[in-house]
Amino acid sequence: MSLDAVLSRIDNDLPEAMDRLLDLLRIPSISTDPAYNASCDAAAAWLVADLNSLGITTEKRETPGHPMVVGHVEGPDPHLLFYGHYDVQPVDPLDLWDNDPFDPKIEETVKGTVIRGRGSSDDKGQLMTFIEACRAWKAEHGSLPCKLTFFLEGEEESGSPSLVPFMKKNAEELNSDIALICDTGLFESKTPAIVTMLRGLLGEEITITGPNVDLHSGMYGGVAINPLRVLSRIIAALHDDQGRITVPGFYDGVPELSDEMEAQWQGLAFDHVNFLGDVGLSQPAGEQDRTPLEMIWSRPTCEVNGIWGGYTGDGFKTVLPSKAQAKISFRLVGDQDPLVIRDNFRAMVRDMLPDDCDVSFEGHGASKASMTQTSDPSFEAARKALSDEWHVPAAYVGCGGSIPIAGFFQDILGTTPMLVGFGKDDDAIHSPNEKYDVESFHKGIRSWARILAALTT
Amino acid sequence: MSLDAVLSRIDNDLPEAMDRLLDLLRIPSISTDPAYNASCDAAAAWLVADLNSLGITTEKRETPGHPMVVGHVEGPDPHLLFYGHYDVQPVDPLDLWDNDPFDPKIEETVKGTVIRGRGSSDDKGQLMTFIEACRAWKAEHGSLPCKLTFFLEGEEESGSPSLVPFMKKNAEELNSDIALICDTGLFESKTPAIVTMLRGLLGEEITITGPNVDLHSGMYGGVAINPLRVLSRIIAALHDDQGRITVPGFYDGVPELSDEMEAQWQGLAFDHVNFLGDVGLSQPAGEQDRTPLEMIWSRPTCEVNGIWGGYTGDGFKTVLPSKAQAKISFRLVGDQDPLVIRDNFRAMVRDMLPDDCDVSFEGHGASKASMTQTSDPSFEAARKALSDEWHVPAAYVGCGGSIPIAGFFQDILGTTPMLVGFGKDDDAIHSPNEKYDVESFHKGIRSWARILAALTT
Repeated sequence: MSLDAVLSRIDNDLPEAMDRLLDLLRIPSISTDPAYNASCDAAAAWLVADLNSLGITTEKRETPGHPMVVGHVEGPDPHLLFYGHYDVQPVDPLDLWDNDPFDPKIEETVKGTVIRGRGSSDDKGQLMTFIEACRAWKAEHGSLPCKLTFFLEGEEESGSPSLVPFMKKNAEELNSDIALICDTGLFESKTPAIVTMLRGLLGEEITITGPNVDLHSGMYGGVAINPLRVLSRIIAALHDDQGRITVPGFYDGVPELSDEMEAQWQGLAFDHVNFLGDVGLSQPAGEQDRTPLEMIWSRPTCEVNGIWGGYTGDGFKTVLPSKAQAKISFRLVGDQDPLVIRDNFRAMVRDMLPDDCDVSFEGHGASKASMTQTSDPSFEAARKALSDEWHVPAAYVGCGGSIPIAGFFQDILGTTPMLVGFGKDDDAIHSPNEKYDVESFHKGIRSWARILAALTT
Repeated sequence: MSLDAVLSRIDNDLPEAMDRLLDLLRIPSISTDPAYNASCDAAAAWLVADLNSLGITTEKRETPGHPMVVGHVEGPDPHLLFYGHYDVQPVDPLDLWDNDPFDPKIEETVKGTVIRGRGSSDDKGQLMTFIEACRAWKAEHGSLPCKLTFFLEGEEESGSPSLVPFMKKNAEELNSDIALICDTGLFESKTPAIVTMLRGLLGEEITITGPNVDLHSGMYGGVAINPLRVLSRIIAALHDDQGRITVPGFYDGVPELSDEMEAQWQGLAFDHVNFLGDVGLSQPAGEQDRTPLEMIWSRPTCEVNGIWGGYTGDGFKTVLPSKAQAKISFRLVGDQDPLVIRDNFRAMVRDMLPDDCDVSFEGHGASKASMTQTSDPSFEAARKALSDEWHVPAAYVGCGGSIPIAGFFQDILGTTPMLVGFGKDDDAIHSPNEKYDVESFHKGIRSWARILAALTT
């Protein structure tokens, strides 16, 4: 059967495929920092050239932010769309990296060979698994197995401001039968998984201002309001003693797990001791009446992602600062409405504010949670393909992260998203020393070849 | 009388005195930042040269940190020591300065002519008032009026780590009848004042560590402890709803105001509406059962001077950070013991720490409050001299700031400190756009000439 030939070619061509990935990883396409605008553009151009070399008619499509990469190739039904993102997270704190994040290396580790560098797992390594599968297929068969659309984004790590307008404007062009999205992981680093439950995300930046200038804490300390104290009090009040979030109405629309899902998750036997132990922790810190798996998959959260104000350099400065700032994000589930929660959060902050303080807010994205219907037979076909490749039954799972694109495909295009990825829990995405296992990359490419075969025969 | 001739000379020589101060202000002697070590040394050398030019035998004296400047000149009793500091605060946030902090300018403002630049008020401008008074005296009389010791420090803004060892080692040399300290201000920017009550200072830097690496808040949010939340909770717990500090035993040794002092302070009619209004505030934020003047002069405080952790750059990063840090300081009064409070504070932080977090502490100075006895007749003589110069009765006042040196003179040398200064509340010391009024500088020099005359006749 022709799939075997494609799989053999994938095995033989792995070194070249890794070289191509390293090339792409060398482009520092940090989307959130304007200093890297040209690099984002260069990463898009790299992908345009690569896809065109496979006979996929591809263009860089301008947006108010970073460009989209969109390519098409004709073929028989079904019409599959592939989504990934070429932008990466910032790299600070840089001093915790063992090597330059943008000088990627192949490293032998006790757990196997890895590709080390920013974006190796999230998401350049993952998106290249699909492109490499197509490359091998094309090389073996002369053409791709079905009608394909490639849709690669450059703003996923910075809230995807251009995504919805672009999808709406080009809905007809992007409309397809299934949207394959490769930005998730294996379950517990070993079981192939199709993610069917994704948390939404609401990002808020708050700036609290007290005195109109930095003050001397000797002269004013005790009598002047300190915005750092106000901010700390607000952040501390966002959770109660049991880990529940206190924003009014926050749990409206949060569903309880179905008995069926609960049973399936219990079957997964999630090892939270190892999951936490890997990062130096031991106690699940969320709602104390929930299981660890619920905490990361099906329960909403509120986290402080950054906080700053006053003197933060070496030594000491007895300043009573004028401003205190924080970046706070909420992971949302079920039918929680991000815009309602944003309003309630802002009202709660304003209510807690002393008379002498002001607050300003900056929104950083607001997306609902999404849940995929798996009734389409493609899901069972893909699940079988994954099980064949990994020699383990693939699972339908939840995901703590937020991939708003999945909801957008459903809501804007009416296309069913299918989330398949090969990241591992210890990939350190968004952290120093990010890596992608060569096993993930290699078997990921092979998995896509199997899925292409399964969905087109 | 010869004092008149000195005062006239001071008036005539003011332009040259201002030029000399501008020269000193151009040296960026930020003591807390090692990048400015050479500048601190240069400021010390500048003062050594200037004092030697007045016939005061002066040397730069090495310490493990920045050098002391020590000078002596013989003369009749009393033996007066003068203390000031040549180091300055850091200048960040630099973008809030209208000009280069170390390119000082004479500016006309609606409130009068000012000398603008870092250190203009704290403390280079102030220390030069005394030196200029000596210069005029010497020029007019050929010699100084009494035995004088100059003792100028370069670490006041960074916790004075070398001060106590140096004073102990050189106690005999520095021992004197009265130590004149010029690092305080006018009362309400208009009434000359001798400070008799100074708060102590305890500085603590805390670092809370949770996960051993920065995490992705999608993957770990909800299940992994977030040190920013832990830190916020601890900071929020340091004060109760009434503004009282909750560190166990914190108020041990805090005295109530004597009836006499309370009556005197009521007579001062402190205008807290203006004091707060100048910096955009309206509500006294300290212990709600205390007057504003008590809050800044006679009550202890706890302030957060800086806080940082996670992603603080542009855009958004859904990181769950490994570390959270803060700089916290306590202003102390009466017999509060800084070392006991440090222990109790650290124990309280440890008690509030979840099992999965660690904390480390770094101390940044610990000094007791001090209170000067004003029974020595020199105090009334100096108070009369100040009243004559400013045409307003001078006051004995408290001071919210911490000038540990006052206590050290008392405790280590047995010398009575006398704190006289000419800063104004709107000088923006420790803030951007620091300034010193030319009126403060000019009348400050004249005040010292009058005090020298009053103490030596």
